[in-house]
Amino acid sequence: MSSNDPFTDEDWMQLAISEAQKGVGLTAPNPPVGAVIVKDGMMIGKGWHQCAGKPHAEREAIAAVKQNHSLEAMIGATIYVTLEPCSTQGRTPPCTQGILDHGIKRVVYGADDPNPDHAGRAKSLLEEAGVSVTTGICQAECIDLIRPFSKAQLTGLPWIILKSAISLDGKITRPPGESQWLTSPESRQHVQQLRYTSDAIITGGNTLRNDDPALTIRDEAKLKQTGKKQPWRMIITRGDASSLSQSSQVFTDRYQDRTLVQENGDLLQALKKLVEKGCHTVLVEAGGTLMGAFIDAGLADEVAIFYAPMITGGDMPGFAGLEREVSLRESKFTQIGDDLLLSAFIDQTSL
Amino acid sequence: MSSNDPFTDEDWMQLAISEAQKGVGLTAPNPPVGAVIVKDGMMIGKGWHQCAGKPHAEREAIAAVKQNHSLEAMIGATIYVTLEPCSTQGRTPPCTQGILDHGIKRVVYGADDPNPDHAGRAKSLLEEAGVSVTTGICQAECIDLIRPFSKAQLTGLPWIILKSAISLDGKITRPPGESQWLTSPESRQHVQQLRYTSDAIITGGNTLRNDDPALTIRDEAKLKQTGKKQPWRMIITRGDASSLSQSSQVFTDRYQDRTLVQENGDLLQALKKLVEKGCHTVLVEAGGTLMGAFIDAGLADEVAIFYAPMITGGDMPGFAGLEREVSLRESKFTQIGDDLLLSAFIDQTSL
Repeated sequence: MSSNDPFTDEDWMQLAISEAQKGVGLTAPNPPVGAVIVKDGMMIGKGWHQCAGKPHAEREAIAAVKQNHSLEAMIGATIYVTLEPCSTQGRTPPCTQGILDHGIKRVVYGADDPNPDHAGRAKSLLEEAGVSVTTGICQAECIDLIRPFSKAQLTGLPWIILKSAISLDGKITRPPGESQWLTSPESRQHVQQLRYTSDAIITGGNTLRNDDPALTIRDEAKLKQTGKKQPWRMIITRGDASSLSQSSQVFTDRYQDRTLVQENGDLLQALKKLVEKGCHTVLVEAGGTLMGAFIDAGLADEVAIFYAPMITGGDMPGFAGLEREVSLRESKFTQIGDDLLLSAFIDQTSL
Repeated sequence: MSSNDPFTDEDWMQLAISEAQKGVGLTAPNPPVGAVIVKDGMMIGKGWHQCAGKPHAEREAIAAVKQNHSLEAMIGATIYVTLEPCSTQGRTPPCTQGILDHGIKRVVYGADDPNPDHAGRAKSLLEEAGVSVTTGICQAECIDLIRPFSKAQLTGLPWIILKSAISLDGKITRPPGESQWLTSPESRQHVQQLRYTSDAIITGGNTLRNDDPALTIRDEAKLKQTGKKQPWRMIITRGDASSLSQSSQVFTDRYQDRTLVQENGDLLQALKKLVEKGCHTVLVEAGGTLMGAFIDAGLADEVAIFYAPMITGGDMPGFAGLEREVSLRESKFTQIGDDLLLSAFIDQTSL
């Protein structure tokens, strides 16, 4: 923090985080990243990474300064970035070089590069070049932003969110003759938001047969505006693909080229196929058996469970066939319409 | 509100409600009631009904004024009562008479007498005697306080709260070898509070056989201090009483004379027996089948469901065998320790 800056590093990093959040759902296989450039207590530029192939957040922020100020404005400035700047040549030149080229004299970042071979490399490189570096500002939030990217980097598997809509007694079914929806319109709108921040949606053969879901983002105008593509759709069936009706929406609609099938119920194979397609965040919207299989296999990272305010005594549980119980951590409850949304992480150590 | 009273009727009624709350769990077959007497913007006395046979709240408040002030202090005063004062001779003389005898010139009450034959009778009687009467202040809260009393008055049946502790997937069981408790110590303490405000606890023959629960209030010092008795314990079995182990805690502990048995799974008979014992608020702490039976029979009024932050995939559902789904209204979620408590009313119109 320069002495004539009335704001703290945390204040500026929060702005960078807000920038990064604009890219959630759009950037895979890259992480969402935000950057803010500050000089004499004033923000002179900000930017976020919009999608793979486009400039990194640091470059976007630098471009914004160039557009609105003189090049000299950047000399002696501080850049706040949610993630450690890249130091290797990728699709774009390394951001560390961009920082040095423009005379920025201080770099503040939140999360280290999750790749242990790269972590801290930008710090040493910049410090050797005489730039002051501060790390770990708003670290938890910055790490949070790149959870899916980090998991993919470290394990080759995507971040898995299990989404379910159940009654207060844990059932996904309603009696015959009732609406197919347990939850409120507000919750269904929230599911659209979850889909928007996901790269792929998984469902099971049974759900396909029973419900014939579209598994799409409905707001096409928003997709057009942001460049977001429809999520990949992965149908996991225990049998072979021929058991699935070829007239299902996912095989016949205008996004049919974004539908994949995994036979023999092979979860790991399904996830690897999705990672190959560049997917990092995967939403599972399926029946209880497939949900239980993901938990049992230790492949699920997070749950988003919408509870409808009713007790159905139905037949079909939202989570079935678990071999052992699993604990959740950082449970967060949010009222959405008449429903309750539980968001929590699966505690893998409890498996 | 007299012109030199800086507080509103609602302010004073809130005080009366606080008084009434002290009696919740203690007063059946009477309702909990609170009263506050105000003169010239100052409270000069307050009181609450402590148990059947002791003075009504109005009499307690009048006695408090007498103890701390001159008798004249009451002349021209206002009394705030949560419930319409009684106007008929019961175990104690009618409170309307007490009000007139002491020169109180204004009566403000929240809830009408739930007995339609009595409702509004105090109002006319007092107004005829020249007393000003205002009704319906904080009405919803005042009606809420006497829910169990009102239900018993109108239907001859007690107010039934279904208490369950389940996993997020709706199961009451944990895998073998784990602690028998799903929920946190804080939740179990909260259950003690629910028992304290109840007149009886119902469980089923199966729970008795499997868990041998004590179904008691543990804090004996608090019982002694408040005069609260251990709740009645009602064991409902589908077979006959001989199928229950006579060595169970409820048949052998020092409160064994407060244990009742209902054979043939006859819910209605069980509830009538409890009402005969003066019980108005009854907590059901049972397995899924008995819970479901209460809901299906339209006998359940409220749920208190503690959700533990785990997904167990267990065998035993918290609510089982329901013939139709039931909606809940006025859902209230509260974090308790690591658990979530859902309190809600059962919407009988949804059955």
